[in-house]
Amino acid sequence: MNIEDKLIFPRMEKSKQNHLKEKIFEIIFEADTPLGKLFDVMLLITILFSVALVMLESVPSINAKYHTILVVLEWVVTILFTIEYALRLYCVRKPWRYFFSFYGIIDLLSILPTYLGIMYPSTKYLSSIRILRLFRIFRIFGLTQFMRGGSMLLIALRQSRAKIIVFLSFIILIVVVIGSIMFVVESEHPESGFTSIPTSIYWAVVTLTTVGYGDIAPSTALGKFLASVVMIIGYGVIAVPTGIVSSELSRSKTPEPPKNTQVCPHCHDSYHLDKAVFCKTCGTKLNS
Amino acid sequence: MNIEDKLIFPRMEKSKQNHLKEKIFEIIFEADTPLGKLFDVMLLITILFSVALVMLESVPSINAKYHTILVVLEWVVTILFTIEYALRLYCVRKPWRYFFSFYGIIDLLSILPTYLGIMYPSTKYLSSIRILRLFRIFRIFGLTQFMRGGSMLLIALRQSRAKIIVFLSFIILIVVVIGSIMFVVESEHPESGFTSIPTSIYWAVVTLTTVGYGDIAPSTALGKFLASVVMIIGYGVIAVPTGIVSSELSRSKTPEPPKNTQVCPHCHDSYHLDKAVFCKTCGTKLNS
Amino acid sequence: MNIEDKLIFPRMEKSKQNHLKEKIFEIIFEADTPLGKLFDVMLLITILFSVALVMLESVPSINAKYHTILVVLEWVVTILFTIEYALRLYCVRKPWRYFFSFYGIIDLLSILPTYLGIMYPSTKYLSSIRILRLFRIFRIFGLTQFMRGGSMLLIALRQSRAKIIVFLSFIILIVVVIGSIMFVVESEHPESGFTSIPTSIYWAVVTLTTVGYGDIAPSTALGKFLASVVMIIGYGVIAVPTGIVSSELSRSKTPEPPKNTQVCPHCHDSYHLDKAVFCKTCGTKLNS
Amino acid sequence: MNIEDKLIFPRMEKSKQNHLKEKIFEIIFEADTPLGKLFDVMLLITILFSVALVMLESVPSINAKYHTILVVLEWVVTILFTIEYALRLYCVRKPWRYFFSFYGIIDLLSILPTYLGIMYPSTKYLSSIRILRLFRIFRIFGLTQFMRGGSMLLIALRQSRAKIIVFLSFIILIVVVIGSIMFVVESEHPESGFTSIPTSIYWAVVTLTTVGYGDIAPSTALGKFLASVVMIIGYGVIAVPTGIVSSELSRSKTPEPPKNTQVCPHCHDSYHLDKAVFCKTCGTKLNS
Repeated sequence: MNIEDKLIFPRMEKSKQNHLKEKIFEIIFEADTPLGKLFDVMLLITILFSVALVMLESVPSINAKYHTILVVLEWVVTILFTIEYALRLYCVRKPWRYFFSFYGIIDLLSILPTYLGIMYPSTKYLSSIRILRLFRIFRIFGLTQFMRGGSMLLIALRQSRAKIIVFLSFIILIVVVIGSIMFVVESEHPESGFTSIPTSIYWAVVTLTTVGYGDIAPSTALGKFLASVVMIIGYGVIAVPTGIVSSELSRSKTPEPPKNTQVCPHCHDSYHLDKAVFCKTCGTKLNS
Repeated sequence: MNIEDKLIFPRMEKSKQNHLKEKIFEIIFEADTPLGKLFDVMLLITILFSVALVMLESVPSINAKYHTILVVLEWVVTILFTIEYALRLYCVRKPWRYFFSFYGIIDLLSILPTYLGIMYPSTKYLSSIRILRLFRIFRIFGLTQFMRGGSMLLIALRQSRAKIIVFLSFIILIVVVIGSIMFVVESEHPESGFTSIPTSIYWAVVTLTTVGYGDIAPSTALGKFLASVVMIIGYGVIAVPTGIVSSELSRSKTPEPPKNTQVCPHCHDSYHLDKAVFCKTCGTKLNS
Repeated sequence: MNIEDKLIFPRMEKSKQNHLKEKIFEIIFEADTPLGKLFDVMLLITILFSVALVMLESVPSINAKYHTILVVLEWVVTILFTIEYALRLYCVRKPWRYFFSFYGIIDLLSILPTYLGIMYPSTKYLSSIRILRLFRIFRIFGLTQFMRGGSMLLIALRQSRAKIIVFLSFIILIVVVIGSIMFVVESEHPESGFTSIPTSIYWAVVTLTTVGYGDIAPSTALGKFLASVVMIIGYGVIAVPTGIVSSELSRSKTPEPPKNTQVCPHCHDSYHLDKAVFCKTCGTKLNS
Repeated sequence: MNIEDKLIFPRMEKSKQNHLKEKIFEIIFEADTPLGKLFDVMLLITILFSVALVMLESVPSINAKYHTILVVLEWVVTILFTIEYALRLYCVRKPWRYFFSFYGIIDLLSILPTYLGIMYPSTKYLSSIRILRLFRIFRIFGLTQFMRGGSMLLIALRQSRAKIIVFLSFIILIVVVIGSIMFVVESEHPESGFTSIPTSIYWAVVTLTTVGYGDIAPSTALGKFLASVVMIIGYGVIAVPTGIVSSELSRSKTPEPPKNTQVCPHCHDSYHLDKAVFCKTCGTKLNS
């Protein structure tokens, strides 16, 4: 909040309770104050650290060697996240709204697997959910001015949405038809891997997108010829999405970056104007 | 048809027979009325369902387990499509013209394999033809305003046709020459897979388009060097179609979307103006 | 030659011998007259047919079965090309100049292997040279108006030459450095295929260009991490040539197509203006 | 240095010692004089030759055969580079500054491994460091006008830096999340290669960038479906960096090329104006 704002809109009287709540809200949800920035940096490091833990745990050799250390560190991180989750629930005005929001669910899914692991033996499937913590990074960056480039990309993508849908439909259609043709052509040669239409469609996707694993490859002359046609189509068709995005980006102008990191305590809407006192979406008074 | 049109061009007297025909035509071929829209949505779902059936039938394990259910469902879908095909033939003014049109043939090919399966034991080859039903989706979308993005893409592609042909000719030439060179270079090492010039050309396509299956790969030092050159050429040459489409799309402007979904009952031409009373192509009176 | 030209520049007296030479020159080298066009079409078909012959000969199974037919057809094509070659030498004013020109050498290489095959047993190496016949197609298209799109592409490529050289140097540098690093990293695991620096560089090219055969693939954790970095670089770097060509094509305007297919009988220069009487390059009088 | 400059700024009196130093500096660091150009060309050839030596040494079969010749040539190159390194240290005004500069370290690393090889048996790791000699080429080209195309590319890249960072972050996030999902999906089938989350992430990178080695490939139906989605995402997402660079290059104008190759003897800064007498960065007098 700018100094001028403070002069124009003097802080109203509040109970100490509310003041604490507001303070925590400002630290956790916003990035204007030094403490808010410090919190974001610490959170970012913890998230990256916890994601690294989940990855290391999944490597059999490392898990066998350092199992105890990994479990202890995992608990430390989980408890930190639990405290943060509790504070978030405490300081927002409408806890239920946060609880059922996208980030609320991500936050819960980040800590739940470790607690469930006490009751039920921790399985691979459960612990991998914690990788979703990575999505929490977006919340941090969403508050800073880093996203200017990204928002421009998103605008370009949104404006060419119709063209992208048509393009994807075309790709799906071509892949289904080619997959079926190749299934018929190569069905006499089971060793080439075209065992069913879905598998052949999978091959068509692998080929059209120029990935080319080689686990399924045509063995007949006709199959190879058709595959060559598919490849050249794929090689040429890649030009279409590129052309779409290029021309969209050439047209678009850089939008003004959001300079304000305030978040509405009621509806969690961000991107307010610098001198905004009330939320532009729900009209709630913003924290100064 | 707009309400104003109805005021300006009062509906002429017709026999009941003609009225029914016209009504069915409007439902099946157009998408203006609520019934026409409902028909299109139902048809879309049925097509997607029948395509899924064909795919599942091709998977050996699923076909073994649920063969009876799949056959029954296949018959249900075929009978529905047969009724639709009969109605289409009934309501158009010139059935033969529809019969020999692109969609007329697709419609026939969609239902024929199941009926032929009674007389002759149903083979894999026949049943896969039914995947062509997917093309019928285009007819549905052709009537809606979804295709604006697509039509712009098509315009860009058509305008850069000359450049695309030159580009493709160049690709074919380079692939034939490189394939022949690699055949000579690697012919001493049959284990690397360059067994004939066509096979080597197939390898050149796989490599130039950056698909890279790995089923054929050079084993000599010279072969690897030449392959590297091919890859770098392919990596650079991909820029050409992209550049063509990009610059074309940058130039082109979004065309006005077709707002009218009327189809001429005589020549099946679509994209009429909103207030059109007569077909712009053959002069036949359009259904109101 | 336009009718107006004929009025303005009346045909001069020539000996019959010269008239025949000129007539043949017009048919073989130009494409203005109906006979010239017919000749080009026939030549195009023969070239494509002979290239197909060379390809089929290289397939062991086909060669074993139809060897005699292939040899006979090959001789028919060779004799046709020999007659054409002799006529070309006869009708040009300076045969030696044609003999040592690019197309003169290609024409000779197209027929020589078959004749050499009588003296020496026809080897794979000799017969594969005949695939160069494909280059002769370019001469045909060089005379028509087909190349407008191509010439525009060439202009765009030529104008961005400096950028393309810098880009290629960068690619070569990055590939050499990455190849050497991967050689050191993976040298303990000979089974992953990084046996020498050149092989590792080959792998780096395969990976950076997103071809990815899979014959050489990292097996250590560090190797996989470095490979991932290379892939993402390659994935991003592909944008550079595309961007170069796109922006060049956006800038360039469609050049006027060459409307005249006259070829200078002296220096074989093409692309003369419609009303040109003398060659723009060497000043020789053009055939009317 | 231009002739006019010589007239305007007459050469000041210097001791012979200084004159020699200055002469060597001009030859080694600049490319204005014929001798300076000759030196650069010779250096370029020597560097490329020495890099070829390092590569050949790494090939087991070549090293076994020509070991002695390779060692001798390596010593010749190393001694030449040592002399050059000594001269560079001698002629710069502040040797320590050069010693710790980027090129100073590269120069040292280019010769050190050979000398260390006497004391310790030359290992693969040591000798591979010499490939860094390749970076010395950049110094040569940095002085010429070759880099105009490159500098334009760099400007385009720098201007779209924010968008590229956002794009890369998005790629890393998507790859981590998809890798984790695939690990869970394919963990029951260890033969498909998804043995840990890092390995699965490696697979996701290989697939998203359309490299597709095929060493790790999904075997379950769900895995194949998810892989297809990843491929289509990757195929579409490649449009984004291309679009970014294209639109940036379309906007940017060709910058003026640096016409002057003088290098400051104090701070080694290049790109001075044509008539510059003092270094634009540190104010030191430039050699005439």
